Amino acid sequence: MKKLRAAVIGLGVGEKHAEALASSKSCELIAICDHDVTKLAEVSSRFPEVRAASRDSDILNDPKIDLVCIASHDNYHFAQTMQALVSGKHVFVEKPFTYSVVQGEELVELADRKNLKIMVDHTFLFTGAVRKIKELVDRKELGELYYYDALRVNLGLFQHDVNVIWDLAPHDLSIMDYVIAAKPEAVVATGEKHLNGVEDVAFITVYFPKRIIAHVNVNWLSPVKVRTTLIGGEKKMLMWNDLEVDEKLRIYDKGVSMSTNPSNLHQLLVSYRSGDMWAPQVEQIEALRAETAYFLKCIEENSKPFNDGEAGLRVVRILEAADRSIRSRGEAINL
Amino acid sequence: MKKLRAAVIGLGVGEKHAEALASSKSCELIAICDHDVTKLAEVSSRFPEVRAASRDSDILNDPKIDLVCIASHDNYHFAQTMQALVSGKHVFVEKPFTYSVVQGEELVELADRKNLKIMVDHTFLFTGAVRKIKELVDRKELGELYYYDALRVNLGLFQHDVNVIWDLAPHDLSIMDYVIAAKPEAVVATGEKHLNGVEDVAFITVYFPKRIIAHVNVNWLSPVKVRTTLIGGEKKMLMWNDLEVDEKLRIYDKGVSMSTNPSNLHQLLVSYRSGDMWAPQVEQIEALRAETAYFLKCIEENSKPFNDGEAGLRVVRILEAADRSIRSRGEAINL
Amino acid sequence: MKKLRAAVIGLGVGEKHAEALASSKSCELIAICDHDVTKLAEVSSRFPEVRAASRDSDILNDPKIDLVCIASHDNYHFAQTMQALVSGKHVFVEKPFTYSVVQGEELVELADRKNLKIMVDHTFLFTGAVRKIKELVDRKELGELYYYDALRVNLGLFQHDVNVIWDLAPHDLSIMDYVIAAKPEAVVATGEKHLNGVEDVAFITVYFPKRIIAHVNVNWLSPVKVRTTLIGGEKKMLMWNDLEVDEKLRIYDKGVSMSTNPSNLHQLLVSYRSGDMWAPQVEQIEALRAETAYFLKCIEENSKPFNDGEAGLRVVRILEAADRSIRSRGEAINL
Amino acid sequence: MKKLRAAVIGLGVGEKHAEALASSKSCELIAICDHDVTKLAEVSSRFPEVRAASRDSDILNDPKIDLVCIASHDNYHFAQTMQALVSGKHVFVEKPFTYSVVQGEELVELADRKNLKIMVDHTFLFTGAVRKIKELVDRKELGELYYYDALRVNLGLFQHDVNVIWDLAPHDLSIMDYVIAAKPEAVVATGEKHLNGVEDVAFITVYFPKRIIAHVNVNWLSPVKVRTTLIGGEKKMLMWNDLEVDEKLRIYDKGVSMSTNPSNLHQLLVSYRSGDMWAPQVEQIEALRAETAYFLKCIEENSKPFNDGEAGLRVVRILEAADRSIRSRGEAINL
Repeated sequence: MKKLRAAVIGLGVGEKHAEALASSKSCELIAICDHDVTKLAEVSSRFPEVRAASRDSDILNDPKIDLVCIASHDNYHFAQTMQALVSGKHVFVEKPFTYSVVQGEELVELADRKNLKIMVDHTFLFTGAVRKIKELVDRKELGELYYYDALRVNLGLFQHDVNVIWDLAPHDLSIMDYVIAAKPEAVVATGEKHLNGVEDVAFITVYFPKRIIAHVNVNWLSPVKVRTTLIGGEKKMLMWNDLEVDEKLRIYDKGVSMSTNPSNLHQLLVSYRSGDMWAPQVEQIEALRAETAYFLKCIEENSKPFNDGEAGLRVVRILEAADRSIRSRGEAINL
Repeated sequence: MKKLRAAVIGLGVGEKHAEALASSKSCELIAICDHDVTKLAEVSSRFPEVRAASRDSDILNDPKIDLVCIASHDNYHFAQTMQALVSGKHVFVEKPFTYSVVQGEELVELADRKNLKIMVDHTFLFTGAVRKIKELVDRKELGELYYYDALRVNLGLFQHDVNVIWDLAPHDLSIMDYVIAAKPEAVVATGEKHLNGVEDVAFITVYFPKRIIAHVNVNWLSPVKVRTTLIGGEKKMLMWNDLEVDEKLRIYDKGVSMSTNPSNLHQLLVSYRSGDMWAPQVEQIEALRAETAYFLKCIEENSKPFNDGEAGLRVVRILEAADRSIRSRGEAINL
Repeated sequence: MKKLRAAVIGLGVGEKHAEALASSKSCELIAICDHDVTKLAEVSSRFPEVRAASRDSDILNDPKIDLVCIASHDNYHFAQTMQALVSGKHVFVEKPFTYSVVQGEELVELADRKNLKIMVDHTFLFTGAVRKIKELVDRKELGELYYYDALRVNLGLFQHDVNVIWDLAPHDLSIMDYVIAAKPEAVVATGEKHLNGVEDVAFITVYFPKRIIAHVNVNWLSPVKVRTTLIGGEKKMLMWNDLEVDEKLRIYDKGVSMSTNPSNLHQLLVSYRSGDMWAPQVEQIEALRAETAYFLKCIEENSKPFNDGEAGLRVVRILEAADRSIRSRGEAINL
Repeated sequence: MKKLRAAVIGLGVGEKHAEALASSKSCELIAICDHDVTKLAEVSSRFPEVRAASRDSDILNDPKIDLVCIASHDNYHFAQTMQALVSGKHVFVEKPFTYSVVQGEELVELADRKNLKIMVDHTFLFTGAVRKIKELVDRKELGELYYYDALRVNLGLFQHDVNVIWDLAPHDLSIMDYVIAAKPEAVVATGEKHLNGVEDVAFITVYFPKRIIAHVNVNWLSPVKVRTTLIGGEKKMLMWNDLEVDEKLRIYDKGVSMSTNPSNLHQLLVSYRSGDMWAPQVEQIEALRAETAYFLKCIEENSKPFNDGEAGLRVVRILEAADRSIRSRGEAINL
């Protein structure tokens, strides 16, 4: 089979994409691009065989390129993805997919029409920890889900043009979307701006059907770095601490159940169950390489990636709603 | 000076109050009361000299009693406090003060009129950790405050008639009220009911003037017990982990500051400061005894306790608003 | 059945023994004793029905007493146990059993001759954690044992007449003796005196058959309190952290195995196995009450406690050898 | 100034050395060497300008090379260092310096005679944490030292020809030597072999003058990775946890002091001091680059590195003594 020819635009995190693409056997990295020529030269020295371009149009209009990885500043995601699709390329685009739902819908619709693939880089979905969580939830090990509560706080890094929600929450929202696998009903967000005119502290609640509630706490002003998610279910509960080296995932055989008092039907009896804790061995995966390989396979087999444009759009819908809600101090935005 | 004569109603946590009052030199515990006669007999055996009553009216109408500690079920706080005030007694009442703002206002007004003291049991305010936090904030060690973010989660204990907010949040709201010492503007709360018809997971945001934002995450369905509060300020930040045996408090010489680029006045420059961490020795205090002694002193000196009925009412105002907000999925309730 | 009549000598930790004995249904606490009359009066007020004696001979010679719990200063363990046995009483004695092997042997021999029971208070053996460890080791869950490595360090509390080994190591040595259940071969100990003329830092190695090696690190001069034991076996390994509230015990499905390279018989191949971690629910037991009940049962059924005088003696043998070894800078003392 | 010309032999950890040398401005990396040609080709592709040699003699005899970094298997350290010195090169050699004291002395003597520098790679001495510890100890912040207690355990990696002492302890012994800065008096070591005929668990005590005692616990069979050192002094104590990302170093204002009871000169009074804990910001240094730069500077300025051959030899003396002691079950080996 002919190898797919790939290019990367934007060489910040894009340098990692270039590595992943270059090391793949089913594709050939043929061009890299950054408008910062110093950065371009630096990365170029690592890939001497690969064409280096400083203008994205050189990549986006090049008919020899089959797929492009867009890792430029978030501002450019929409326009570059659009142009790539127009010129018939598959697109692997960094998160957040776009800055608005309208933009995202346009791209998804175009890709569908031209039978091109869009995949949004939600790398966490390819880590051992998230794969294991998904597997546990799908197998109903936790029983019916009750809540999803994520804490992602640290000191900085301030973004100048987006708030802490657009910067940090896409990770949690994409994982939540993947794990809960249901259409959210409404979003409530609160937060505050302290320094540069954008929210640096924010709290997002997402309501799902069947009383599942999700919450994401993101903060650029925390003295400590925390990356912890609690997921509570009817049968079991888990804690995922992504900063642990081993034992990232702990599953607790704990729970609460209610029954009716046989001698007094109006009275509810609560019973607690407290059993073992279990930390499954989590597969050590180079998540970005696994994700890259998966996208190449989707293109070859003409199948839709599960983290496609539609998945990216679901995250953008929540981000956009959270932004609206935060401006009106917590008004519920129905989705 | 004649010793104050005290009584305790309700011998769950009230047993601790009885101990604290009995061991005080400036007061005499003369009666205890519980409608559960088994419980009453059990506690009574520890205080053989003290009168044991099974009806609260025996206490509330007894003219020899100067002050009464009300530690009965939350349902009775209002009626018992009312009756105690009517019959001229000072009242030390468990949190939450009352179930509604209207009730609380009535009690505060009555106490004022009769020059009687009400103190609400917000024990945490008398712990070494909270006293140290208050001292640091008042001394402006943290600089202007940015946020207050509390996490109080564990498995159970389910209450049958109040939700997780009324059960767990009074602790954090009273500390927040004490530390921030400003009138809150609005409350937004979200949450969900999974088991017995009351919210078991809830998230409360409280807006304060000067862009201070507070958040309280309370959950009865967590597999792990967490008691952590982050407070971020302009100059320093702190983390209080109440489950640590030593080093409950960690103060970080960390921060972010903004300046304008001298050569481009439209551009903001962010600078980070990352310095030492410092865990001050926190005084080991028996908080409830300290609080009891403080109340007795307030009565003797005819001074208002800082955690008086008005303070209890400020917490009830937020609880009531949170309840209203949660029912309308996050509608902001102005205070 | 007639209830056993018990007495307690020494009301420091002996107060806990008095509670345990008083609450037992199969025995009657009839006397308590302490030469410190203030202490005696204080404890006596909690047990108004129980005779209070300030001279131990009043207890030791009283023919109505069936068993005596000796919780006096370590100095008196030998003489009091001796006198109690002579006057026909069963003895529950605090650790360390005696200050020398010779003394311990004398007591064991006398108790045997008179068919009286001695039980040495190694409370840890009755905790949920140690019972679970014993069960795992006996079931060969860990496979053949490789090592036992205990760390027990904190700041103070300095003893004036014994060193840190006699103060802290009995806990670990009794657990080690129970879990490994083999006769140790030799002891090597090192340590140093810094403050009051006795060792405050010490390291003990105990050699067992089959290449099992045990190590105990005890220190009165540590800024942090640590209570951690690692046990490594052929198949699994465990860590016991006694300061954890939940999850005291973690069992790791990890190991190393060796095989011979089939193509080169002189070459050893190492393979690592890294699997799940599992924290079994550990029974919450009031260890001292369980131990007391067990002793009463042993007396009634005329059976030997597993933590009998012989077990206490095994610990004293190692303590005595460690003392000798430490004085000669690590000379191996064969047991 | 003419740049020093450097070569690296052995491209395991040597690859890092090659990077450090290549990135230095005061030296030129001109050759790399590994007898494994696959490895050589792989590293060579990263340094296309640098000569690649598969035979060490090509390097060791090349008169154009001023200094050689020896990062080959420990077996070769002696012979290659010898040959490098003979042919007039400065040597930066991996730890352990040599396999015996005799070898080490020979090399030190030869280097002295030819005025060549030897530096032994004790990288930890260049980390921010160890530099800070050294500074605190030298400033007498801890007061007189009492003990140094290091724990370095993990699962594997088994070495085939050296035991766990030669593999893991050089790190701790070199830090201990640097921090305590006194000549040790004697070594006692215990340990056991379980798998491949060399000790995989070992405990080393080193006696220093003035009652300072050091202890190193090394273990290849631990289910958890631990890298913790406690240092206790008269005035303060510290804990260094190298696995912490931030706050690697914690300094405790805690201590014990003794005084004589004024009314009874035979009685010692113990007093405890328990104050704040303080985690100083530790400089983030690329230790190996700092060490490399330091060596180049020492050569240029003709000054002796503090981690010179003599320092390496001091560590080898303890390793050799520990090996002898372990074979005789803890016999003290005087140094």
